Amino acid sequence: MNQLKIFCDLAANEDSISFLRQSIAPHQLVLAAKPAKSVLSKSEVDPGLLTADIAFGQPDAAGVLAAKQLRWLQLSSAGYARYDTPEFRQAAVARKLIVTNSSSVYAEPCAEHVLAFMLAQSRKLPETLKAEDPHEIPNWLRLRQASTLLLGQKVLMLGYGAIARRMVELLQPFKMQISAFRRKRNGDEPVEIVSIEGLLKALAEADHVIDILPDSLETKKFMSAEKFAAMKPGAVFYNIGRGATVDQEALAAALRSGRIAAAWLDVTDPEPLPHGHVLLNTPNCFITPHTGGGHPNESRTLVQHFLNNFSLFLKNLPLHDRVWT
Amino acid sequence: MNQLKIFCDLAANEDSISFLRQSIAPHQLVLAAKPAKSVLSKSEVDPGLLTADIAFGQPDAAGVLAAKQLRWLQLSSAGYARYDTPEFRQAAVARKLIVTNSSSVYAEPCAEHVLAFMLAQSRKLPETLKAEDPHEIPNWLRLRQASTLLLGQKVLMLGYGAIARRMVELLQPFKMQISAFRRKRNGDEPVEIVSIEGLLKALAEADHVIDILPDSLETKKFMSAEKFAAMKPGAVFYNIGRGATVDQEALAAALRSGRIAAAWLDVTDPEPLPHGHVLLNTPNCFITPHTGGGHPNESRTLVQHFLNNFSLFLKNLPLHDRVWT
Repeated sequence: MNQLKIFCDLAANEDSISFLRQSIAPHQLVLAAKPAKSVLSKSEVDPGLLTADIAFGQPDAAGVLAAKQLRWLQLSSAGYARYDTPEFRQAAVARKLIVTNSSSVYAEPCAEHVLAFMLAQSRKLPETLKAEDPHEIPNWLRLRQASTLLLGQKVLMLGYGAIARRMVELLQPFKMQISAFRRKRNGDEPVEIVSIEGLLKALAEADHVIDILPDSLETKKFMSAEKFAAMKPGAVFYNIGRGATVDQEALAAALRSGRIAAAWLDVTDPEPLPHGHVLLNTPNCFITPHTGGGHPNESRTLVQHFLNNFSLFLKNLPLHDRVWT
Repeated sequence: MNQLKIFCDLAANEDSISFLRQSIAPHQLVLAAKPAKSVLSKSEVDPGLLTADIAFGQPDAAGVLAAKQLRWLQLSSAGYARYDTPEFRQAAVARKLIVTNSSSVYAEPCAEHVLAFMLAQSRKLPETLKAEDPHEIPNWLRLRQASTLLLGQKVLMLGYGAIARRMVELLQPFKMQISAFRRKRNGDEPVEIVSIEGLLKALAEADHVIDILPDSLETKKFMSAEKFAAMKPGAVFYNIGRGATVDQEALAAALRSGRIAAAWLDVTDPEPLPHGHVLLNTPNCFITPHTGGGHPNESRTLVQHFLNNFSLFLKNLPLHDRVWT
């Protein structure tokens, strides 16, 4: 077999890079002159990319298309909005460029993050933890009575991929009624699949609506004013997908009117939100700064995921986490 | 069958009381002149108690012993420290007084509350939620890297009752290594049971130590300085049992020294903690004000639990949630 050139611009620690280098030998690792700063920042075209067979990380989209030998691009993120243009898709299909992402790496931390949100909301942690000195909480009985259970409640997930599948497992002991919105039904999903026609009705019934949508051509402001208005009064909205899938003005209005009880967001548009943004001053809007995918030794798990796919690639087997399939 | 007199001092809403009254008919409900204020407050002896056959709520311990006809006492709490004196135990045994508590009512909310604590800690919610305006968090990558997973971690539960059994179910999808300290092993526990001899070693290995101990004669300051010193560096301590089971000075010292990463407490001694108490000013000590058992319509579920036992009582069958058996 020819020696392959693998371009990598992952912002990884030295251990992970040396693990990657050793594991792909005798194939060649070509490191970017500058690693990508974060999965959301745009990197510059690196000369190493232009002659690579495989690219791993967050390489510049135009650079990917200019790299004539490139046969496989593995993104180090679950999101792939930067590459999701008609031009890129068309070029990738024409060239038979395989595009994979790292959604299996982020399924566990993101699913645990959402469950943390759900339980923090139901156990009223933002309020009860502030009561560090309960002398100042004459209303502790009210807090106790406001605390709720996940047991038996209804969950609607928007999107059904790796995170959703792990969510279903984590929620299993709570005996919840779980459904998921998905455009194309596979038939092997272990939960009720809701079509676009049934979505407003499903929104009206769910106690918890979990947005796991990617930012793509089809999902811009998917959660619109109409959809927030359709939600069950007192329900809770969560976003672990992408901020651009939400009409944030409509979300703020739904929170301010009291229509929905709370929103828990790990993603916003943009990130971070600018000073004075309406969501920063909306009651019951809880935001974590895109830490949902974080986990110990993240660059090592990203490298391991790449290596799993690399061994499949060398055998001409189908890769995990294909995008646009 | 003779008409039984059921004394009740539960601080319940009218619906729950009228549901109770209708459900026990033709037996007689005798309401306390003053309902118990909370499960932790001491109520006065009520004349209605003295002639009752059954008592339900939080009646005065001396009054219970003075009620010569009383055959069964059902406490509306999981805790029973107020009744746990040698005198009371001895008198109860001598009179064959059945004592039950409401621990099955609180298993679900308390187990969900602990899981909320565990996930809030692992996803670093107290820090990440403060980052509502992430402009002020130049260290968001640090937060992301500090976020951890429950998956595969080690849990040690102190005590193995209704809450612990439900915890085991809720933690099942996380594939954790779960063990529990229990003085008397039944043999049917689905997790490894740790004896008092093995406890220091188990404390040294656990990432999460969950105190579910009742306040009893044997458990005062069970979590001593020695036991905190035995904990794995960086581990987390949770208390959903009773505050009196912890040497709070030793806990504060373990937190301040950085030996343990955090403590999440739903119970303290006393409740609430007095102004200026060391735990109120200890970093990484997160306290909710005994809201762990709270859930919608609590008085209704307490009444339902009583009625389940009442129907067993009428048939001379063993009751659920027996204390001292």
